[in-house]
Amino acid sequence: MKKYFLFLFSLISFFQGISQEQSEKVVKLIFDEALGSSVAYENLRYLCKETKGRIAGTPQAAAAVEFTRQVLEEMKLDRVFLQEVMVPHWERGNVEYGNISSVLFGSREVPVSALGRSVGTGKEGIFGRVVEVYDFEELEKVGSEKIKGKIVFFNRPLDPTLIQTFSAYGRAANQRTSGPAMAAKYGAIGVLVRSLTHATDNIPHTGVTRYEEGVEKIPAVSISTQGANLLSQWLKKDPDLTFHMITNCRNLPDVMSYNVVGELWGTEYPDEIITIGGHLDAWDTGEGAHDDGAGCIQSIEVLRIFRALGIKPKRTIRAVMFMDEEMGQTGGKKYAELAKINNEKHYTALESDRGAFTPQGFGFGTQGERLEKMIALKKYFLPYGITEFKKGGGGVDIGPLRQFGIPLISYIPDSQRYFYYHHSPKDTFEQVNPRELQMGSAAIAALIYLIDKYDL
Amino acid sequence: MKKYFLFLFSLISFFQGISQEQSEKVVKLIFDEALGSSVAYENLRYLCKETKGRIAGTPQAAAAVEFTRQVLEEMKLDRVFLQEVMVPHWERGNVEYGNISSVLFGSREVPVSALGRSVGTGKEGIFGRVVEVYDFEELEKVGSEKIKGKIVFFNRPLDPTLIQTFSAYGRAANQRTSGPAMAAKYGAIGVLVRSLTHATDNIPHTGVTRYEEGVEKIPAVSISTQGANLLSQWLKKDPDLTFHMITNCRNLPDVMSYNVVGELWGTEYPDEIITIGGHLDAWDTGEGAHDDGAGCIQSIEVLRIFRALGIKPKRTIRAVMFMDEEMGQTGGKKYAELAKINNEKHYTALESDRGAFTPQGFGFGTQGERLEKMIALKKYFLPYGITEFKKGGGGVDIGPLRQFGIPLISYIPDSQRYFYYHHSPKDTFEQVNPRELQMGSAAIAALIYLIDKYDL
Repeated sequence: MKKYFLFLFSLISFFQGISQEQSEKVVKLIFDEALGSSVAYENLRYLCKETKGRIAGTPQAAAAVEFTRQVLEEMKLDRVFLQEVMVPHWERGNVEYGNISSVLFGSREVPVSALGRSVGTGKEGIFGRVVEVYDFEELEKVGSEKIKGKIVFFNRPLDPTLIQTFSAYGRAANQRTSGPAMAAKYGAIGVLVRSLTHATDNIPHTGVTRYEEGVEKIPAVSISTQGANLLSQWLKKDPDLTFHMITNCRNLPDVMSYNVVGELWGTEYPDEIITIGGHLDAWDTGEGAHDDGAGCIQSIEVLRIFRALGIKPKRTIRAVMFMDEEMGQTGGKKYAELAKINNEKHYTALESDRGAFTPQGFGFGTQGERLEKMIALKKYFLPYGITEFKKGGGGVDIGPLRQFGIPLISYIPDSQRYFYYHHSPKDTFEQVNPRELQMGSAAIAALIYLIDKYDL
Repeated sequence: MKKYFLFLFSLISFFQGISQEQSEKVVKLIFDEALGSSVAYENLRYLCKETKGRIAGTPQAAAAVEFTRQVLEEMKLDRVFLQEVMVPHWERGNVEYGNISSVLFGSREVPVSALGRSVGTGKEGIFGRVVEVYDFEELEKVGSEKIKGKIVFFNRPLDPTLIQTFSAYGRAANQRTSGPAMAAKYGAIGVLVRSLTHATDNIPHTGVTRYEEGVEKIPAVSISTQGANLLSQWLKKDPDLTFHMITNCRNLPDVMSYNVVGELWGTEYPDEIITIGGHLDAWDTGEGAHDDGAGCIQSIEVLRIFRALGIKPKRTIRAVMFMDEEMGQTGGKKYAELAKINNEKHYTALESDRGAFTPQGFGFGTQGERLEKMIALKKYFLPYGITEFKKGGGGVDIGPLRQFGIPLISYIPDSQRYFYYHHSPKDTFEQVNPRELQMGSAAIAALIYLIDKYDL
């Protein structure tokens, strides 16, 4: 079978003009190779189970760096290297307590999860009355007088009617990322944020928050959606109820960490670089399976597939495990910074950071003829049910490469389940289906193969 | 909000010519209603958790009949009724044991699951040497002399490279449905069938087998894929190893059961019937969540959505819970038989029996202009990522309606995960995502709405 592939590829190399039919055959071989292999799935299992807790700056993150470096080394690629990155270092601690006390309803503990980069509450915790708001507009309307000395409770849910769930997330996320800093300006002593999930359950979803320079840093936690619903109901009848929260998370000095890079050198234009990446760090409450172990493993898998099929790209293909997407986005920034310093010639970059679900398509951050040509690649993907080829692409980690004027590509899988798992204890290896993971690996490999072959 | 809907629909009724724009709005309202409601998800939870084990003819199946009847009654539909169906009655029993004994490798118990309608082994079980075959061709080649008195082991895996997983299943399923009858003709004393799943694990997937008149009925079980792999490896080095299997499943006399039907009467052509259905019976080892609790609940949900939005269909819409799809397909046959006897005028029928996954599209069992018009409905579904509108549709339960020359429609969700759960203990409520379930309900409701409105 292998010999047959090699023979096929010799033929392909021999005839310079590659017909569409031949490309279709290679795309089919890529999907066959991906769907017939369990290597990526087993790599993801290791990453999830053995490096759980890999927030940037932690020993687990170091383990994830070393594991993926070893995987790349064992593949005998043309080059494997690390890029030094200074990353923020935040520790969750071991106490997360939230409790509602009401003279009408009694006392009820509710699950909370400290937000990344949040300060802790101190040993006694934060205790105060609660002001529920929908958004920053309402926060402003309520005003300092009513907020001062209280805990602000941001309770805006994800809109379930938005088919693109990332849009729903995008419209609700600022209450977590900026809510604590905003509330502090009005004199709040702490912040509760409704978990950014479509699920109605008792599991809090964490995520980063960003304090502002010169504004007091107040403790912030996410609260499960059921907890948020209960708190909201009780508040309606008992506005004087109190909330008690205790966390001992803390920010430590920045530490050295790494982006991990593996290269397959190009045969014709080795100095032109195509980047495929995901991020290696992940929230500690889950295993970082969909977010974003999958994207890392798929990036590595693209190189494995190329190797297994004897595909020799014209350009250098890099699989990049970016560090610290969740906390400070320092890995992506450092990658672009080094690209500039080293005068690297970047051709295109693709990011996979939307989970290991059945592929729907790609978004292309480019325009004009280049965009048209990329969208025209759709025809190769129709047999695999991959139909969404559209304008607009990028990603947190590849975003800083935009300065080089190259097309940034988003890998787009089905998004219906993503926010059930995202940043929560439910984001585990068991929630990844091996076929869905590998349909994604194959789709990315096929796209990169075609872009490189047809010089798009 | 409700008043707004009613007003919108009064407008729609008022203007006879419904523009595409108006239809688009109604489709949007259908999706919004589905994605904002948890009724269907909670109904599915009940069906899974409270009627687990609902093989046709069992008390649990009777519970499922009564539960769905009550759900339909509480919806205050125009008519709710049961159709009597005599169904086969098979009991799994409480012993399922499989063990490999090898002088080289020792003894190893492996998980097995009796096939539906299989006879039991008797108390002592079946004990014998094992002949592994890939398919019926190989079975014939091996021949009676080498098979007589032995256990035949069908070990053909699902082809992982087939993107349409139902095709992979279709190409492997005859070893389970007909394998035992075939093997018996060559003198086999029992049959092992590799589980029909893409998963590599230790969980057997059950399913029906069909004996042939005049051929000895020999006991048959499915074996987990890991068990099958082990047995195959050991057999290569020790062809004399033996297998011991014990089951006490049994066939009992047929019993009375029911199809459950709920109707929303048409305003213009009440005698024209549009059927939407799933099957109520399910294998007992799991909860029948994807197969096919989801299809039943989605069928009911279509009526609920119509009611909630005040949509008044021109034709009568029936949600049908078919009984006994898994064992004898008697429910579907009876439904068509009664349609004939009662001179019912059927317009079209749609079946949902492929799991509660993100919708991809529909298959239409019709041709010519009618097919073209149905495929042209695709434009309404593109905003929801539903793009696969193709020729060819049907289903086990609606299949017998083909005699009336009506278009049979298959609902097609994403199929990558389906056979990980199918007919196994893994087919549980927890494996259903509420958004994916409801995207399906909405897609079906929208399609039926459009077909009825535009008289397709």
